[in-house]
Amino acid sequence: MPTKADLQRLRSLRDKKHRETLGLFVVEGEKVVGELLAAKFAFEEIYATPDWPAGREGAKPAPIILTPAEMARASHYPTPSSVLAVGKIRRTPLPDRGVARGLTLALDGVQDPGNVGTLLRIADWYALDRVVLSPDCADLFSQKVINASMGSFARVTVHTVPLAPLLAGVPAATPVLGCDLIGTDVHTLSPLKDAVIVIGSEGRGLSSAVKACITQFVTIPRYGGAESLNAGIAAAIVCDNLRRSAGP
Amino acid sequence: MPTKADLQRLRSLRDKKHRETLGLFVVEGEKVVGELLAAKFAFEEIYATPDWPAGREGAKPAPIILTPAEMARASHYPTPSSVLAVGKIRRTPLPDRGVARGLTLALDGVQDPGNVGTLLRIADWYALDRVVLSPDCADLFSQKVINASMGSFARVTVHTVPLAPLLAGVPAATPVLGCDLIGTDVHTLSPLKDAVIVIGSEGRGLSSAVKACITQFVTIPRYGGAESLNAGIAAAIVCDNLRRSAGP
Repeated sequence: MPTKADLQRLRSLRDKKHRETLGLFVVEGEKVVGELLAAKFAFEEIYATPDWPAGREGAKPAPIILTPAEMARASHYPTPSSVLAVGKIRRTPLPDRGVARGLTLALDGVQDPGNVGTLLRIADWYALDRVVLSPDCADLFSQKVINASMGSFARVTVHTVPLAPLLAGVPAATPVLGCDLIGTDVHTLSPLKDAVIVIGSEGRGLSSAVKACITQFVTIPRYGGAESLNAGIAAAIVCDNLRRSAGP
Repeated sequence: MPTKADLQRLRSLRDKKHRETLGLFVVEGEKVVGELLAAKFAFEEIYATPDWPAGREGAKPAPIILTPAEMARASHYPTPSSVLAVGKIRRTPLPDRGVARGLTLALDGVQDPGNVGTLLRIADWYALDRVVLSPDCADLFSQKVINASMGSFARVTVHTVPLAPLLAGVPAATPVLGCDLIGTDVHTLSPLKDAVIVIGSEGRGLSSAVKACITQFVTIPRYGGAESLNAGIAAAIVCDNLRRSAGP
């Protein structure tokens, strides 16, 4: 039976500082826990109240049963759900060749967790080889990012590294693409098996150090009056055009 | 000087019921008011505290100056901003030929106001001729929809009508496109000058009455593991491919 200190520890994981110290993160809710279990994500611990439906289907590890009052003490939300799962924070080091091969989505200072989650989902849909986050992006292990990724969190390889030094070392054969209002029409992109697609924050765009590493600016043609598209939509359209060019 | 009743009336406009009764809506904040003024939206009234920067640039109509305490009484938010503007609700009737000509984005039960706003922005970027909302979509005149549209609210023609009867009357020469997991690859779409793109809610998809009116299902090719794309991204990719085919 979980002690008060155990429940306190679970609740403390809503702060990044405590997640980093303990090397653990939490997700809550039938939907997200179900998505990650379906994606074969290996949780360390699952806590559930007796009404968690998936508990009957042999979730692994077997859930530790909490009373609703205990769940309320552990939960990060005012309205706790029937399940809370704990995962280990694993950080995959970039291979030595960095992002030279395959398709990479690099996020520069995307601080909105919903946007980071959406971008993981896009990377997953388009089977990109990896996502690289600059250290000032929203924390990958926050609940909002994982929820917004709709399970893609468990399928996409993500690295967190300073972007400018990484991009500065990309060989010339691998274009580093940045979206801008002036650039190559994305509809005319040549097939690319290796490329880095860099997306900045919607409000501030690319940082100047990262912008200096872009080797090809691309533009999504605009036909009407909107000033911009959001980060997720811009990334999806670039990916759609790259995949269309390169074939499956 | 505004009376207590005036301020109370402004605050009451956060409810759709009162908006409909008075035929008025409210937007608040320097960003959204600035976007709509830049798009030449004709407000009925503007209320501002003395620190509203745009007040000095000759906004029309001239702002009525409120004290911060008065603004707090009028505002829909716990933290009021420096400006609140009132617009008239105008509903544009559909022309007799309905959606037979040009490109139409039709939203079927999209209840999330952020999604509706994002979809208006996409319709604006791709210069669609109109957006049609089913009556159970998020209210066009809610602040969340207008904020998320980033000014596109003022540029896009929007009609609210029951979708199934409208779509049932579309002539055969105008395809009614629906996104589905099985359908024509969106990359192979022929050029279309006239088409209706129907987007459902992310959770529930298309209603069965609307689904029965789809004449061509289109699929966005998936290369990886994500189960779906969100409504805004799906719409943007269909529009990008249609515009690419049709040319500017």
